[in-house]
Amino acid sequence: MTILAAIRGWDADKWVARLQATLPGRDIVVPGDVFDRRAVHYAVAWKAPAGSFAGLPNLEAIFSLGAGVDHLLSDPKLPDVPILRVVDPDLTNRMSEYVVLHCLKILRQQMRYVRQQAERRWEDDDRQPAARSVRVGVLGTGVLGQDAARKLQLMGFDVAGWGRSPKDIPGLATYAGPEGLKPFLARTDILVSLLPLTDDTRGFINRALLSGLARDGRVGGAHLINAGRGGLQVEADILACLDNGALASATLDVFETEPLPQDSPLWVHPRVTVTPHNAAMSEPEAVVSLVAEQIRRYEAGEPFQHLVDRGTGY
Amino acid sequence: MTILAAIRGWDADKWVARLQATLPGRDIVVPGDVFDRRAVHYAVAWKAPAGSFAGLPNLEAIFSLGAGVDHLLSDPKLPDVPILRVVDPDLTNRMSEYVVLHCLKILRQQMRYVRQQAERRWEDDDRQPAARSVRVGVLGTGVLGQDAARKLQLMGFDVAGWGRSPKDIPGLATYAGPEGLKPFLARTDILVSLLPLTDDTRGFINRALLSGLARDGRVGGAHLINAGRGGLQVEADILACLDNGALASATLDVFETEPLPQDSPLWVHPRVTVTPHNAAMSEPEAVVSLVAEQIRRYEAGEPFQHLVDRGTGY
Repeated sequence: MTILAAIRGWDADKWVARLQATLPGRDIVVPGDVFDRRAVHYAVAWKAPAGSFAGLPNLEAIFSLGAGVDHLLSDPKLPDVPILRVVDPDLTNRMSEYVVLHCLKILRQQMRYVRQQAERRWEDDDRQPAARSVRVGVLGTGVLGQDAARKLQLMGFDVAGWGRSPKDIPGLATYAGPEGLKPFLARTDILVSLLPLTDDTRGFINRALLSGLARDGRVGGAHLINAGRGGLQVEADILACLDNGALASATLDVFETEPLPQDSPLWVHPRVTVTPHNAAMSEPEAVVSLVAEQIRRYEAGEPFQHLVDRGTGY
Repeated sequence: MTILAAIRGWDADKWVARLQATLPGRDIVVPGDVFDRRAVHYAVAWKAPAGSFAGLPNLEAIFSLGAGVDHLLSDPKLPDVPILRVVDPDLTNRMSEYVVLHCLKILRQQMRYVRQQAERRWEDDDRQPAARSVRVGVLGTGVLGQDAARKLQLMGFDVAGWGRSPKDIPGLATYAGPEGLKPFLARTDILVSLLPLTDDTRGFINRALLSGLARDGRVGGAHLINAGRGGLQVEADILACLDNGALASATLDVFETEPLPQDSPLWVHPRVTVTPHNAAMSEPEAVVSLVAEQIRRYEAGEPFQHLVDRGTGY
């Protein structure tokens, strides 16, 4: 029984080695190998080209190796088999590390102190706000959004969440749907995006949305952190909002085009932080164990977990 | 009844205004004012010159406006009256913000990404360790150390504490005394100093101590974060350890001499982060309310809280 590993943008060899070590009874093949297409029962995928999973008559399931599945659902030739998403506590923790790091960086004006150090300048700011007076708004109230919100609260921030549909989350103020967006944005100093990329969310972080953020807060204006997907954001609008005062800063881990093109003005904007899409890297060891566990369940007659709903796109 | 406000290094006018607003029935005077020395019953102090509190025959207590009291206890003419320390939850939270920010900065290699952005370089590191595989050691198991340790644990770090005397802290591995120091250092990748400055701790962070830190961890060597007091550290030893491999980085909020002199090599060392002693700034509003509450208690016949023990120095 064969597993097709169609992986792009990551070190595919490392994933293949891990799959072989964890699933010793299976053949692991990659696109370009010569193999019997009828023998492929499972595929593991990350940003594979469209059509990678067509023509596999016995394919039973496709596993996305990261949290997002937009790279699969955008494939017009995607076969009608179950799509499974990784729900890895390790990946959730890493995403929250990134979110808390960058919210604290904004709160504590760390980039200002980096610049001051370069100028050998000793100067503090006696208007340092407490975390409780800074309002963070988390876009996305799923597993990632809830974990980040909880950890931000523990650090003292005043946190609310927004999701597509209403959700009751103990201890967290939540807003939902299009009608909840305006009041959510109006009470938000730091906007954290952890949304999935779907037909509904493509281009969601645009000028209209960013213009609705609070500008009267304690951190010198509104700040954006996008650790979700590059397709959520309109980069021309982010740059316009940085220049017209709607945004004080942007911290971006994801981009419309990745790697971020050399000529993007985001690289050099003094109020933009660029990280190379590594907020939450999938670690082969943890993720492959989760894939193996789902295969074991399935072959024992148990249902798959973490199935993707093709209707909502996540 | 008069209160003497002897404040150096901070904006004294702001503190005086806050004292006047919070304690409207009292005269607030500063060194250099003409006032009746017999009328002074209380003093509030921050880094005042030695002798500032001598010759006040009716002085009943001195309040330190920050967490440290070394600036008072080093005064040979300090009168024999109760010394009170500020225990401000707000200040504790700010210190933990600083500690968590800089531990996450190290974990997530944020300074590397700042450099890469300056070079428009898109390059991630697929060896990104999880927080649980990184060992943080907190020097100091008092209010500040315990709060920082708890928040670091919530972010996933593997945390232990070291204190002068044994202390049982639920959920935290602790080491104590000189005999506990070696094993504590040997299991520590990131050393966080939140110790008070006393005769015992002056120069504590020296070459011998830093050479005992783990170098085999997941964050590329040993890292130091000193947010306690500058007198704890021997800066020549820190620089030597950065150069001989004992230390991978140092994040310093406090220095032997403050402001940090222009010619200090710490400003320009590529693996040193300098912040201008602002990890936990005392905020006049919160601190003055705490002082007023202690005066109210005392004058109602209740005992003072947060008294300093001159024997231990904290």
